[in-house]
Parts: sequence; C-alpha cells; structure tokens
Amino acid sequence: MNKLSQKELLQQFKPIFYPESIAVVGVSQDMQKVGYGWVKGLVDAGFSGSIYPVNPRGGELLGLKIYPSLAAIPETVDYVVVLIPRNAVPDLLNDCAAKKVKAVHFFTAGFGEIGDATGHRLEEELKEKARQGGFRIIGPNCIGAYCPKSKIPYGPLAARPLSALGESGSVGFITQSGGIGGKLIEIGIARGIKYSKGISFGNGIDLDTVDFLKYMAADPEISVIGAYLEGTKDGHRLFSTMREVAKVKPLIVWKAGRTEVGAAAAKSHTGSLASSALIWSAALKQASVVEAYSLEELADTLLIFQQLQRWQGKGVAIVGGLADGGGGISVSGGDTCSELGLSIPPLSESTRQQLSSLLGQVGSILHNPVDVSQGGGRPLILEQAFKLILADPVTHLLIVQEDTGILMMQMPWEDIEAINNSFIDLMATQDKPIVIVLPSGAAEMERLQIEHKLTQASIPVFPTMERAAKAIMNLRQYSRFQATIRG
Amino acid sequence: MNKLSQKELLQQFKPIFYPESIAVVGVSQDMQKVGYGWVKGLVDAGFSGSIYPVNPRGGELLGLKIYPSLAAIPETVDYVVVLIPRNAVPDLLNDCAAKKVKAVHFFTAGFGEIGDATGHRLEEELKEKARQGGFRIIGPNCIGAYCPKSKIPYGPLAARPLSALGESGSVGFITQSGGIGGKLIEIGIARGIKYSKGISFGNGIDLDTVDFLKYMAADPEISVIGAYLEGTKDGHRLFSTMREVAKVKPLIVWKAGRTEVGAAAAKSHTGSLASSALIWSAALKQASVVEAYSLEELADTLLIFQQLQRWQGKGVAIVGGLADGGGGISVSGGDTCSELGLSIPPLSESTRQQLSSLLGQVGSILHNPVDVSQGGGRPLILEQAFKLILADPVTHLLIVQEDTGILMMQMPWEDIEAINNSFIDLMATQDKPIVIVLPSGAAEMERLQIEHKLTQASIPVFPTMERAAKAIMNLRQYSRFQATIRG
Repeated sequence: MNKLSQKELLQQFKPIFYPESIAVVGVSQDMQKVGYGWVKGLVDAGFSGSIYPVNPRGGELLGLKIYPSLAAIPETVDYVVVLIPRNAVPDLLNDCAAKKVKAVHFFTAGFGEIGDATGHRLEEELKEKARQGGFRIIGPNCIGAYCPKSKIPYGPLAARPLSALGESGSVGFITQSGGIGGKLIEIGIARGIKYSKGISFGNGIDLDTVDFLKYMAADPEISVIGAYLEGTKDGHRLFSTMREVAKVKPLIVWKAGRTEVGAAAAKSHTGSLASSALIWSAALKQASVVEAYSLEELADTLLIFQQLQRWQGKGVAIVGGLADGGGGISVSGGDTCSELGLSIPPLSESTRQQLSSLLGQVGSILHNPVDVSQGGGRPLILEQAFKLILADPVTHLLIVQEDTGILMMQMPWEDIEAINNSFIDLMATQDKPIVIVLPSGAAEMERLQIEHKLTQASIPVFPTMERAAKAIMNLRQYSRFQATIRG
Repeated sequence: MNKLSQKELLQQFKPIFYPESIAVVGVSQDMQKVGYGWVKGLVDAGFSGSIYPVNPRGGELLGLKIYPSLAAIPETVDYVVVLIPRNAVPDLLNDCAAKKVKAVHFFTAGFGEIGDATGHRLEEELKEKARQGGFRIIGPNCIGAYCPKSKIPYGPLAARPLSALGESGSVGFITQSGGIGGKLIEIGIARGIKYSKGISFGNGIDLDTVDFLKYMAADPEISVIGAYLEGTKDGHRLFSTMREVAKVKPLIVWKAGRTEVGAAAAKSHTGSLASSALIWSAALKQASVVEAYSLEELADTLLIFQQLQRWQGKGVAIVGGLADGGGGISVSGGDTCSELGLSIPPLSESTRQQLSSLLGQVGSILHNPVDVSQGGGRPLILEQAFKLILADPVTHLLIVQEDTGILMMQMPWEDIEAINNSFIDLMATQDKPIVIVLPSGAAEMERLQIEHKLTQASIPVFPTMERAAKAIMNLRQYSRFQATIRG
C-alpha cells in the first residue's frame, strides 16, 4: 500500500465502516443459523443502508428479498459478508469483481490457519482475485467490521442479544481474534468503554494490522487504539507503522502467543507465526506503544485512556476505609501502587493537620495512603476529607477503594448513595481525576449498582487496586513516551 | 512461650476460640454503637456460652443483664472483649486479674501504632499486668477471635448483616489488619472458602503471629493457614516457627508493607516496623511458605488449597470457546498459564483424533489449549469433549474458561445449565480436579448464578485465567516444597 493522504485513507475505508449497502451471502431462514443472525443483527441495529441477503434458493428474510446471487442485486454493493463454505468462495469472488464491490469480509474459516495445502492454495487464490477485481479482503476467519455509529453490530445477532451494538465513542480496536473483540465490546458495555470502530480480521491475508492501524490513526473519530495481535507476516512494516501511529494517538497492544504453548495455539487459530516475546516487547517500547499483557489489562487501559486522556499528572493519593477497615487497604494499596511504579507522595503537613482535626488521630493513617475509617462512614465528613486530599498540590489523581460489602454492613443505603454522589459532584467541581476501586465480595448486586452509577458518571471503576494501578501506570508511560518523542 | 505439646496448645487457646463465657466491657444500648453490635452479634450468631455485657450504668441489653463491672459477674469469665477508651484500660486489667480471666481482647485502639509516648507506655503496662495476672492479650487495635463452629462472629454485628458468621470449614487465617480479615470472610462467603478459625490481633503485644501459627498448626480442624502480616518484632522466631508449621500443613503468607509507602502506612496502622521485601520473600521461601502478593491472591490460593488439597499433579489442560470465540482464549490462556509456570502438555495423538472427529477440524485448536468452539455449544458434545480431555493421561487438571456473556448470546439458559451440570457430574465421576474461569462482563446476574451453582458443588471459580493459574501454581509450589522437605 502506498502512502495515502488522510482523506484518501478515510475514503478507502468508508465502504467498510460506513457502507451504503451490505450483501450477506449465505443467508438462511433457520433462526439458529448464522446466516439468519447476521441479517437480523443489521436489521435490529437499524443499519440505514441497503441490506441484500443472498442465497441461490431465493425467497424472503425479515421482509427483505433474498437474491439468488450477487449478480442479481440491482444496485451497487459496498461490503459483502461471506458465510458460505470455503470451496464455494472462489466463484463468489468472480461475482464480486463483476459487481465492483469495495470490500469482501470472510466470516468463513478453514484457510491458512488449518495448515493444509487446500487452505493455503485458497488463500493465494483469494488474494489474486482481490487484486484483479479491485476489492479488498477482510479475513478470512473473522467477524469483520463493527461501527456503532453506522449501526453495524459485531457479527450476527444471537438468540439472546446483550445490546450487542453498544454506545458509540472514541475507542478503536483491532483484533486477530473474533472472540476477544466480542469480549472487549461486552466489557465496554459493562464498564463504559465506548467504541468508535472495531475490526476483527482473522488471518489478515489482505487488509491487516498495518492497514487498520493507519486508518484508525487517520480517523478523527478515534482517540485511542487498542489491538490484540497474535503475530505478523512483516514485522518491520508493522513496527514502523506503529511508531508513526503512536506519534498521533495512544496505541495499546496486547501481543498473545508469547509463549511456546500460546504460539502453537496462535498458529492453529489465525495462522500466525510466533516470534520471541522479548523481541516484541522491546520493539513495542521502541515504537512508543503501551504494552498490555491480558484482556483485562487491555480493557482497563482503554478505559483509563478514554476517561483521563489529557491527564499528565504524577502524584497519586490513595484512600481506603470509607466505613471501616481501611488500615490493611492503605498498607497494601500503598504497596501495590508503589511496586507498579506510581508516585504516592506524602500529603503536605497542612492537609494532614486538617485531616487529623476532621477524622481524629487514633487509628488513622494520614500521610498517603489515607485511612478515613475514623470518619465513621459519615458522608459529609468523607466528602470533606476527599476535598482536602484533592486540594493538596501533591495530589494529581485520587484513587478511592470502596468496599461494598463493608459499606453494606456499616451504613444505610442512603449514606452509600451520598458517598458515591460526592464522587460525582467532585468530578464536576474540580479538575483532578477520581478512580474508584470496587472489589467483589458478598454484596454483588449492590456493587453492580454502584459500578453502574459511577460508570454512567464517567468515573472509571476497577475491581482491584492492582488493575487500577496498572492502567494508570500505562497512561503515565504514554506521557513519558510523548515527552521523549517531543524531545 | 515454651514448647508446648499439641494437647497443651489446644487447651491454652480453648478460652479464645471455644470460650464458655464472654464478657463485653463497654456495651451500649445505642444500636449505632459498637458496644451494642458486639453483643448483638454474639446473640444473633447463637453463641451457646454465657454472654456478660458490662457497663457501670447497668441496665439490660437484648434480654441480658448489664453488669456494672467485671468483678460483679457472678460466674467465671474466659474471654473479655474490651471496647472502652485506652485510658480506662489499666484499671480494667486489675479486674481481669482478680477475676482470673483467660484472655483479654482489645478492640480499643490508640496504643503503640500512634507512636506517641502514652501509647507505648500503656502497651508496656498492659503486658506487665497480663504477665502478673496470668492472662493473655489479643491486640490491642483489632477484631479478635472468629470461629464459626463456636458461633463467634467476626466483630460486631452491623446495621445490615451479610451473614457475617459464614460456614465452618478447614481454613485458618491470621491477620494484623481487621479489615483484611473481614474481607477474607466476605470473599469466603461469596466464593466458598470456609473457615475454621480466624484471628485479627492488631499490634500483637502479647499473643502474636508465632503463637497463633503454633496453635493453628496443632489444631486438627485446620488444614491450611493463610496470614496477612505487616511486620514482626522477632524475625528469627517468626521464621523458625513458620518453617515448623509448613512441615505440618500449607502456610500462605501475604506480607504487606513491602514498599516504603506501604511500610510507612503499616507503622501507623499496627506499629509494625518495615524490613526489606526481598529479605522477607527469600526467608518465606526458605521456610517453605507460599507467598501471596495481594488479597485476591491470598483468597484465591486458600480456595485452591481448600478444594484441591491432595492434588499433586502437573499437566494442566485448558479449554475455551464453549459457545464460540475460543481462539483468543486458547492463545492467551496458554500464554498466561505457561508464563506463570504451569505445564501445558500437548494432548496425546489419540485424544486429538477423537476430538477432531467430535468437533471437526476447521477452526479448531486441539493440541492444548483446546478450543471447543466447533462444538457449537451443544452440551452433549461439550461433555464428551471434556471427558476425552480428562481421560488423557497427560491431563492432571482441567481449566475451563466459561464466558457467561458469550454463552448468553449463543444458547438458551437450559443449555448453559446443562453444561455446568456436566462439570458437576464430572467432579463426581472421575478424580481429576476441574477449575472454572468465569470472567465478568455484561451478564453479571447470570454469571453470579453460575458461580454460585459451581461454588456450591465445590468447584473453584476464578474471575480471570491469570488468577486461576497463579493459585494453581502456588499449590504446585507447595508440592515441591514438600518434596524437598521429605528429601
């Protein structure tokens, strides 16, 4: 691919993320089949372009005419979803060329990732036909494009939808694994990560990581990019692209297949070849790419970048013990954050004195971490303490560990609501970000209620101090990369 | 403390965990006060011994006579809970001596942990009076003893109880932080960790880690011990005790205050002095103690030891993709488990062939990890696959990642139930342990329902592959320690 201007790039990928028409080849009237679910997904999501179901048997599906072939569709087709078996694919591609479609996405699997001769031969044939026909290929062996704004859901609508479309936002993701993409969307719905676009490209025989990275870097709707990668066919090209992308916006990469066991699985999964985890890590760092090491860390980091993108602070204040039992949380929270590299500066003397007057001295840890147990769970006292800590010049960000189970034992629900409202108020009335750690326990219904409330108010919520600290540290690392790039 | 026989040790700690009578000094008729909650907790839990509330004002509490002083109680008192302020404590101890009580527990804080002269002086006075009076001290600044079997709850019953007593089991815990103990119990209730006894001993001026370790090692009701420690006054004594304990039963220690920040907080919290994290880690290893690095890891490890205690296997099989999207899970799950040191041997050729016939070749990863996505979520096919994998001689333990959100999108609830029932059946009909990874997402209600069902069936459930793998690795490490000890 030659160097394209931003405008050309956006134009090139428009038929993929903003197509005017989609043909689904291999539809079915059987509600259990993917060929039904795919069309149903587009219809239910409210895709506003044309949807053309295709099956030689013809008929009707969800009020839409089923065309016997791609050629039979009277209008132009931007994007083709291919659900038919691998052996029927080459013929279809002749139709795609004739029809002058822009992009063909293969949900169909059974190509290079199997490792048999037929699979590899078919992949070569696909590539050749795409070149000749002037269209691009996504896949094979993948879910394809996802774009809440254009109402394109992630894959087929299943028997029981989990509002699979999600809200539109500013996060982009690129994944070699369809399942990981689905999980990212699911976590996003639960935790408030809002995606602009996502792409699952499986074996990536034509459009691959590099192409989608360039596009997402150019796309003004995307502010941060996350990627799940299992390998690459051209490391040099990938890393030079990453370096360029990371200059423009934050890029977080989770490279799987790091171990022998993982790499063997990756080969069967997307046909990716392994390379040393250490080499990848070093190259990512050199390219100013933030590395994540698990699905949780990738999601946590995307959440933090989405919510705190412009944060360039350093000092973190930690608070525990909203109701009681904040001592151990303070000690261990201080450990976790320090060990992961966060700066936990002691609060200034005057803040400590004010906290001591407010909370009392006995049983209190007031340097930072701060144990507010002595506040006895009184919402007004706690809010006062949060304000004092946030107002201290050494504090650039506040992490509060809130233990639903302990709160539920110590105070009425109204007080718990009041405490959480104070976080929401503080977000609105001052500039320093607030991050809440809300661990699991024996009061999960209430915990979910609080998580939902805070998430709705754009406060990032994490299940453990460790995960919050890692995500914040990844944001700090990005600031450092940026400082280096700027010289 | 001299070397005591097991019988003597059990006898010595009987008044603490199995007291015949408990006096609560500093009770209150105000339901908001801890002096009300403590008595209410014992009454509601069904403590079968005598409960003697004490307050100079007299009166009645929950149908119990309030005695004006300890001396006024007509019967003997085994265990005294002290809730009065620190300055009133020395006088009370004279009464304890006169009354010949066996153990005095100080919920009261404000001693050595504050760092003022009065606090230190009072601690010395307490120790002296205990020596003279022939009783032992627990605390100060702690929650004291917890024993579901003798119906002693962990601290006061709060406004809204979360069935704080928990079920009786075989896990013992020792903690310097009251809050951490409460959190361990809460997690235990949610995830099926059942405690025999727990002790929060705060500053530990008399009975401390060493004493409780010796007792729990001797106690036949305890099969595994977990400890949260912030420091020790006598490292040599602590580590030689740990070494002895670890010969008898597994000991898992989470040492907090590892960093400068954490250590400073620990000093304010329980008056513990810091020492190098590296020295601790090395000493724990030398003593054959399994080290945990967070609350989550401590709880996860206790759960694994409780459920799989006799497991001494090596090979772990990983399965993902019950409904779909198991490729990324297989690659990353393989990475995570390998990186943490678990052995993931390839399944034998015949198992792979059988899996291939059962599931089909296209899109399947069958070496180990195994992606069963091609099973299409059909419960009978999946059960067959689990059976084949479990029957393979290289498999000693099976980890299955089950994604509730994905299952909910792909299949009816009856099928999800059937799949989980097959795990429960397999636990009953063969010997190899099964561990389930059940990540959070957008179907939390259903996830909790599945977690509860599996937990009830004694199947350990973890929220992430990483946490499952770490806990299993800790169990493997213990087997290795044991092999070394045995020569």
